[in-house]
Amino acid sequence: MSGCCDKPGLLPVETALERLLALAESAPIRETERLPLASAEGRVLAEPLVAGLDLPPWPNSAMDGYALRQADAGEPLPVSQCIFAGQAPEPLQADTCARIFTGAPLPAGADCVEMQENVEVLADGRVRFLEAIRAGQHVRPQGQETRRGETVLDAGTRLGPIELGLAASLGAAELTVRRRPRVALLSTGDELVEPGQSLGPGQIYNSNRRLLASWLQRLGCEVVDGGILPDDLDRTRVCLGELADVDLLLSTGGVSVGEADFLGQVLREAGELALWKLAIKPGKPLTCGHYRGVPVIGLPGNPASTLVTFALLTRPYLLRRLGCAEVTPLRFSVPAGFTWTKPGNRREYLRARLENGRAVIYANQSSGVLRSVAWADGLVEVREGTTLAEGDAVTFIPLSEVLV
Amino acid sequence: MSGCCDKPGLLPVETALERLLALAESAPIRETERLPLASAEGRVLAEPLVAGLDLPPWPNSAMDGYALRQADAGEPLPVSQCIFAGQAPEPLQADTCARIFTGAPLPAGADCVEMQENVEVLADGRVRFLEAIRAGQHVRPQGQETRRGETVLDAGTRLGPIELGLAASLGAAELTVRRRPRVALLSTGDELVEPGQSLGPGQIYNSNRRLLASWLQRLGCEVVDGGILPDDLDRTRVCLGELADVDLLLSTGGVSVGEADFLGQVLREAGELALWKLAIKPGKPLTCGHYRGVPVIGLPGNPASTLVTFALLTRPYLLRRLGCAEVTPLRFSVPAGFTWTKPGNRREYLRARLENGRAVIYANQSSGVLRSVAWADGLVEVREGTTLAEGDAVTFIPLSEVLV
Repeated sequence: MSGCCDKPGLLPVETALERLLALAESAPIRETERLPLASAEGRVLAEPLVAGLDLPPWPNSAMDGYALRQADAGEPLPVSQCIFAGQAPEPLQADTCARIFTGAPLPAGADCVEMQENVEVLADGRVRFLEAIRAGQHVRPQGQETRRGETVLDAGTRLGPIELGLAASLGAAELTVRRRPRVALLSTGDELVEPGQSLGPGQIYNSNRRLLASWLQRLGCEVVDGGILPDDLDRTRVCLGELADVDLLLSTGGVSVGEADFLGQVLREAGELALWKLAIKPGKPLTCGHYRGVPVIGLPGNPASTLVTFALLTRPYLLRRLGCAEVTPLRFSVPAGFTWTKPGNRREYLRARLENGRAVIYANQSSGVLRSVAWADGLVEVREGTTLAEGDAVTFIPLSEVLV
Repeated sequence: MSGCCDKPGLLPVETALERLLALAESAPIRETERLPLASAEGRVLAEPLVAGLDLPPWPNSAMDGYALRQADAGEPLPVSQCIFAGQAPEPLQADTCARIFTGAPLPAGADCVEMQENVEVLADGRVRFLEAIRAGQHVRPQGQETRRGETVLDAGTRLGPIELGLAASLGAAELTVRRRPRVALLSTGDELVEPGQSLGPGQIYNSNRRLLASWLQRLGCEVVDGGILPDDLDRTRVCLGELADVDLLLSTGGVSVGEADFLGQVLREAGELALWKLAIKPGKPLTCGHYRGVPVIGLPGNPASTLVTFALLTRPYLLRRLGCAEVTPLRFSVPAGFTWTKPGNRREYLRARLENGRAVIYANQSSGVLRSVAWADGLVEVREGTTLAEGDAVTFIPLSEVLV
């Protein structure tokens, strides 16, 4: 057997992530494009977003009510103007108040707002203030949220609905974002058949292609479909030769220790390929290298293994190549609703749900079972060498955190 | 002042959600369409996905190694065939073993697999088994994951990368999904200006339109841009008249108690509109009703209020109209990294981050501050009448849970 079948020390997940992030930083995707907000969803900001104005742009009313000088509140005041949101008010006449609505600019001279629930409108139209009034009350000062010149979003921020809304609030109609990474998706194996076709003996449907293509698109990648590679050296060479201009060759299955590893052989002919044996379950074998200068990541082919290694290693790698600072999912401590009696030598990521605040796990945690992930709300991380009793704290990673 | 300015009891968030979900169930979006997997991302399954085959379709090897009859393991065995994944094996010859690779079908007659690391290949090519072998070891039985005829995804499941991968694994090339809901997005207020234009006195940029349009698209909705409604009765009537064929009229701002509530007036002319005063902060006023038979939801106009009421009430409403069972986000209990000394009469949703496992909150929790949400990882829920000391458990809702 070859050396890679020995049992050397396994690579801890953290170390693998550190190495991948370092590789990502050495191969940043620098090109940018300028897009209208409506097209920038899911993309990564290439330049800081700097406020071009104060927010709010002028002091305004936080309530429907009456704007006045606080010092005048002791006597009933006539109403000298009515200010709706969107209107430019006149300066406040002495010894009067102004009817004002939420969001409308405070008139010059006024220093507070009383809400309409706390006044009495007299028969002659004057307004009596029923409660004590503080100067500044119910007024949102100019620049309270943001001052002109402040950075409100850092370069490297992923743009979702909230960030785009924030950019809109500052009047930005376009943003400069990193271009989409081009990711070639390769599946290996004569056993794979695309959905919709009929299965021959020994064949299975290719699920990883759909899983990863949809996921990569969510991450803002352009997916180049490399198809299912034939289990044949020459034809594998031809297929790879046609994928020269991508940013990442992402394969599933096949780049492993087997004698049938044609993809691995071809990649090694014109590049470098390291086989990492990760201390992770599911998902032990991961290959990493380059082919004709293009980075290569080879994920294990079993669906749950593909998913876990993509979520925890490949997704952060891709986001870091786009300059994202935050690339790892939120984790929460929750009580275990299961027992774990056999400590492993790899970190396990169990497909789990929260039930009554406790993490319960799918009965069949086999790496072949994609159904377990569709059932799950998240992954429970069980560290190497650990046993668990019910109620012990475990780390829970919501799947939503890796799917956005 | 009108009756709606009194202070009646506030509507608890749970009650508002229950009412909205009941309204959603009374107005389901039933029409379906059949889509290829690549186009079904983000959509909602209209029919259960039933397995048309066993998974795996046949017993197969979980390892690279040797397939054999467990009873034969005592003696070295010659290798009678080599089985790659994708190949149809011959039945196993008596007193032999088969070289086999991960995922390849087990030959008839074999009942277990030994991994290659645990064998010695003798000079004559025979294989000696070095460790005790259990019948069935390293074999994935036929149907272990899924049996033909089982429901693997329920109707009402939202289709993300994982669900689409699962459908692919069963050979499904197309799925039947609910049609996209058509949602008309209305902003109200003469003060609003679209990004890219210049601000006049008293004007602000419209951020909610971009926030909600991007978010609705993520939820699989078709967004009909109703634009910014003029603060004018007749023109508001004309605008609304042009939006007859939508599934929801979603407005922000303006449907409130103010005298300038033109949208509210027009909606009431040909429909019904209830003003709910929610026990929620940010986000107290929410309107709910119908206009010419079309459901109407009016969200408050302050950006953080819009966000919280969309995330916690409107999103579940829309998903339930599509038949989704699971519509509310996961919640986690985390220690507070802040103090809360003034108990409120409304449930507060504070924009928060996790730092060293504790929830810390954005300094300015004003409802006008969209920046607080862009900063945040999640919302901390503080219940009515509660005070908090550092370290007290609070409920944390990851934003990712409401953004997917």
